[in-house]
Amino acid sequence: MTSTCPLCRPVDEDVLYLTDLYRVISVNDPAWPGFCRVILNKHAAEMSDLSIDERSTLMQAVYAVGAALRELMLPSKINLASLGNVVPHVHWHVIPRWENDSHFPDPIWANAKREWLAKPTFDRDSLIEHLRLSLNQRFASEENINPGLRSL
Amino acid sequence: MTSTCPLCRPVDEDVLYLTDLYRVISVNDPAWPGFCRVILNKHAAEMSDLSIDERSTLMQAVYAVGAALRELMLPSKINLASLGNVVPHVHWHVIPRWENDSHFPDPIWANAKREWLAKPTFDRDSLIEHLRLSLNQRFASEENINPGLRSL
Repeated sequence: MTSTCPLCRPVDEDVLYLTDLYRVISVNDPAWPGFCRVILNKHAAEMSDLSIDERSTLMQAVYAVGAALRELMLPSKINLASLGNVVPHVHWHVIPRWENDSHFPDPIWANAKREWLAKPTFDRDSLIEHLRLSLNQRFASEENINPGLRSL
Repeated sequence: MTSTCPLCRPVDEDVLYLTDLYRVISVNDPAWPGFCRVILNKHAAEMSDLSIDERSTLMQAVYAVGAALRELMLPSKINLASLGNVVPHVHWHVIPRWENDSHFPDPIWANAKREWLAKPTFDRDSLIEHLRLSLNQRFASEENINPGLRSL
């Protein structure tokens, strides 16, 4: 933990899944429904600073979130990114994208190309509930090999 | 392989490392020295479409490229992203970033914030040679667990 790192001192996160190593949160951004982050609990700047086991376990969560979002939201594409330029504490953005969204096919960090018409509407509370359930189910079968897992 | 996918039919790639599963290439973009991609050889759209072993082996390459770039170029941060909105064929962007670069701390896909003064100069041919050497050394010790590895 570093004293100035906001990801070392989480506030008001909507946690979907929690283990000793990481937490999965739902990002409350109306612009991007389904946007989730997988955040390392301890402070480290780069994936290459982690042990092989830590990287592997963290990425299993990233893929599981991507798979859960695909199943629940039927996006055109899943975008994965670990940037950390603003907050150099390992965290993964997992972003469902749709072909008619405001930026597609550009990344969400580019300029908008259009208004997002016919935007899919997902009730956030319901989506969070379904994502929690989906992640718990996806990891339930892996508890034997990930003894550190601790579901909510 | 799909008939229209450009990553299924590579042309003029500067390949740094090649295995049965993936290739690592140096992206020839003067705006972003050191920019590399790790590209799955077969056609698949999402990481969650791959087997656990395939994901793991692919990501080992992504981390190795990140570590090699850190060692050779001393960037402020490594950015990792698998987007695939334009070309839905699994590929990872591995991008060294510097605090004074044109977009920092925004992603490279955002608008530039400034001119990149005192940009580090790397001779591209020399950088490619050093990256090839570094990747071969990094994977040499892992050949026992990755029998499919085939260095250049």
